[in-house]
Amino acid sequence: MELLAAAIAVGLAALGAGVGNGLIVSRTVEGISRQPELRGALQTTMFIGVALVEAVPIIAVVIAFMVM
Amino acid sequence: MELLAAAIAVGLAALGAGVGNGLIVSRTVEGISRQPELRGALQTTMFIGVALVEAVPIIAVVIAFMVM
Amino acid sequence: MELLAAAIAVGLAALGAGVGNGLIVSRTVEGISRQPELRGALQTTMFIGVALVEAVPIIAVVIAFMVM
Amino acid sequence: MELLAAAIAVGLAALGAGVGNGLIVSRTVEGISRQPELRGALQTTMFIGVALVEAVPIIAVVIAFMVM
Amino acid sequence: MELLAAAIAVGLAALGAGVGNGLIVSRTVEGISRQPELRGALQTTMFIGVALVEAVPIIAVVIAFMVM
Amino acid sequence: MELLAAAIAVGLAALGAGVGNGLIVSRTVEGISRQPELRGALQTTMFIGVALVEAVPIIAVVIAFMVM
Amino acid sequence: MELLAAAIAVGLAALGAGVGNGLIVSRTVEGISRQPELRGALQTTMFIGVALVEAVPIIAVVIAFMVM
Amino acid sequence: MELLAAAIAVGLAALGAGVGNGLIVSRTVEGISRQPELRGALQTTMFIGVALVEAVPIIAVVIAFMVM
Amino acid sequence: MELLAAAIAVGLAALGAGVGNGLIVSRTVEGISRQPELRGALQTTMFIGVALVEAVPIIAVVIAFMVM
Amino acid sequence: MELLAAAIAVGLAALGAGVGNGLIVSRTVEGISRQPELRGALQTTMFIGVALVEAVPIIAVVIAFMVM
Amino acid sequence: MELLAAAIAVGLAALGAGVGNGLIVSRTVEGISRQPELRGALQTTMFIGVALVEAVPIIAVVIAFMVM
Amino acid sequence: MELLAAAIAVGLAALGAGVGNGLIVSRTVEGISRQPELRGALQTTMFIGVALVEAVPIIAVVIAFMVM
Amino acid sequence: MELLAAAIAVGLAALGAGVGNGLIVSRTVEGISRQPELRGALQTTMFIGVALVEAVPIIAVVIAFMVM
Amino acid sequence: MELLAAAIAVGLAALGAGVGNGLIVSRTVEGISRQPELRGALQTTMFIGVALVEAVPIIAVVIAFMVM
Repeated sequence: MELLAAAIAVGLAALGAGVGNGLIVSRTVEGISRQPELRGALQTTMFIGVALVEAVPIIAVVIAFMVM
Repeated sequence: MELLAAAIAVGLAALGAGVGNGLIVSRTVEGISRQPELRGALQTTMFIGVALVEAVPIIAVVIAFMVM
Repeated sequence: MELLAAAIAVGLAALGAGVGNGLIVSRTVEGISRQPELRGALQTTMFIGVALVEAVPIIAVVIAFMVM
Repeated sequence: MELLAAAIAVGLAALGAGVGNGLIVSRTVEGISRQPELRGALQTTMFIGVALVEAVPIIAVVIAFMVM
Repeated sequence: MELLAAAIAVGLAALGAGVGNGLIVSRTVEGISRQPELRGALQTTMFIGVALVEAVPIIAVVIAFMVM
Repeated sequence: MELLAAAIAVGLAALGAGVGNGLIVSRTVEGISRQPELRGALQTTMFIGVALVEAVPIIAVVIAFMVM
Repeated sequence: MELLAAAIAVGLAALGAGVGNGLIVSRTVEGISRQPELRGALQTTMFIGVALVEAVPIIAVVIAFMVM
Repeated sequence: MELLAAAIAVGLAALGAGVGNGLIVSRTVEGISRQPELRGALQTTMFIGVALVEAVPIIAVVIAFMVM
Repeated sequence: MELLAAAIAVGLAALGAGVGNGLIVSRTVEGISRQPELRGALQTTMFIGVALVEAVPIIAVVIAFMVM
Repeated sequence: MELLAAAIAVGLAALGAGVGNGLIVSRTVEGISRQPELRGALQTTMFIGVALVEAVPIIAVVIAFMVM
Repeated sequence: MELLAAAIAVGLAALGAGVGNGLIVSRTVEGISRQPELRGALQTTMFIGVALVEAVPIIAVVIAFMVM
Repeated sequence: MELLAAAIAVGLAALGAGVGNGLIVSRTVEGISRQPELRGALQTTMFIGVALVEAVPIIAVVIAFMVM
Repeated sequence: MELLAAAIAVGLAALGAGVGNGLIVSRTVEGISRQPELRGALQTTMFIGVALVEAVPIIAVVIAFMVM
Repeated sequence: MELLAAAIAVGLAALGAGVGNGLIVSRTVEGISRQPELRGALQTTMFIGVALVEAVPIIAVVIAFMVM
């Protein structure tokens, strides 16, 4: 049962992180291709956003490791 | 059973946080690429919004830790 | 059974709050990037809307704590 | 069984209230950013609409408390 | 079993009322922001529509109370 | 079992009535905001449409009461 | 078992009738707001369409009564 | 078991007929509001289409009656 | 078991035929309202397409009758 | 068990054939209404496409008959 | 069990082949209605694409026959 | 159990390959109808893309054969 | 049980790889049809992207082989 | 049970990674086809984004290996 719980936790976390990060980074790439001179500012915002998105999935990963 | 409950709680929280934060940050990046001079104001609003979105998932994480 | 109930309640609450807040804050960021001089009025409305959206999920969190 | 019933009731209520309020408030923010002079009228309508949307979820919350 | 039935009835009712009212009120807010002089007529129609939408969920709530 | 049956019947009816009425009333509000002089004709059609939409859910409610 | 069958039949019928009638009436309201002089012709077509849509759900309602 | 089978058959048939007829009649109403002089031709095609859409659901209804 | 099988077969067939025919006939009505002089050609193509769409559902109906 | 298997096979086949053929024929009707002089070429391509789409569902029907 | 396995395999294959071929052929018909002089080249590409799409479903059909 | 496993593996593979190839080939046909002189280059890229998409489903087919 | 696990792993991997690669290659084909002189650069990026997308599904395939 | 857990974990991870990477790389290819001179900057951002997206699925893969 512990293994199934770990699998569900880390699987949903991977799905959520994939969708969230995919939205952010694809918009960043689109923004850079329009205005290349803003590359630094956009990437900084992207890193902050990705870090915020990754927070809960990382905790889910930690819980999955603790469950095992 | 406790482990399965913790996995469901943290998994749904990760999914919700990923979608919500992904919407906010991608719009912020789009806004900065249009009007770079508003970067400060947009990021401030973004941080407030992300903090508000993260509130319930963080509590879900806390509950998941308490369940374990 | 109590733990599973708490997990379902807080998980659905996190999902609902994520989607609702994501819609509101992303529109607010979009509005500020268009008309920066309205930042105060838009953020005030955003805070009211987020507080209204958070009301039921917060109660769900309280119920989840009471269940445990 | 009572706890599971309370969790389902309050969870679906949180999801419904999140989606409904999210639609209303995000449109209100969009409307204010277009015509700032209508802020009072739009917020009044928003409050009425949110109160109407919240009616059934609040009853669901009451039922969840009664079930417990 | 009665409690689970009450939870399902009131939960689906909250979801339906949230979506229906959300559509109506958000369009009303949009209409007022376009033509502020029609605010009275739009709100009157909104109240009628919300009352019609709320009819069946309110009955569902009554059934949920009767079940309990 | 009767209670569960009543809950499913009235829950789906509330969902269907919410979506159907939401579509009709939101379009009516949109139509009035465009041409205020047609308010009477649009509301008449709206009432007819809502009555037609409500027919089957009302019967579902009656069946739910009979089941109980 | 009979009650559950009646609930499923009438519930799906209400959902189908709500969606179908919602599409037809909302388009009719939209058409009247564009060309008010066609109100009679559009409403006639609407009544025919609604009657055709309601045919199978009404039979489902009859079957639900027979099952009970 | 027979009653459940009849309910599933007639429920899915009502859902299919509602969606199919809803698409056809709403487009017909839209077409008449654009070109009122084609009302006869459009309604004739609409009747043929609705009859073709209703064919299989009507058979499903017949099967549901035979099952009972 | 035979009755449940017949119900599933004819129910999915009704759903598939409804969606498929709805797409075809609604586009045909749209085409006639644009170019009334092509009514014969469009209806001929529509009949061929509907006949092709109905082929498999009709066989599903036949199988449902054979199962019973 | 054989009957249930036949029902699932022929039901999914009807759903797939309905969606696939609906897409093809509706586009063909749209194409003919734009350029009536290409009616022969479009219908030829339509017949080829429908035949290719129907291939696997027909085999599913054959398997369903063999299962019974 | 073998029959159920064969039904699932061939049913999902029919669904996949229907969606894939529907996309390809409908675009080909659209392309021909725009540029009739490219009919040969478009149909050649269509045949190659359909053959590639059909590859895995055909194997699924073969497996379904082998299972039986 | 082996047969059910083989059916699930090959069925999901057929669904994935159908959707993936359908997207690629339909875009290729659209590209050729716009610029016929690029037919060679587009088809080369299409073949590479289809081969890459087919890789994992083909392995799924191999596993399905090995399972049997 | 091992065979079912292998089938689920490789089936979901095929679905994910199909969707991901389909998005990438269809956009590449679209890009080449617009600017044929960039064919080399676009294909290089496409190969990198496909390789990155295929990474996790390939590992899933390896796990499926190890499970068997 | 361990094998099923590993399959679920790696399957959901493959699905999430496929969707996320597909979004990022397809936007990058689109950006390069518009502005070829930004190829370096866009690919650098793409690699960063893909690495961030892959983080959680890779951990899911590691957990799947550990489970086995």
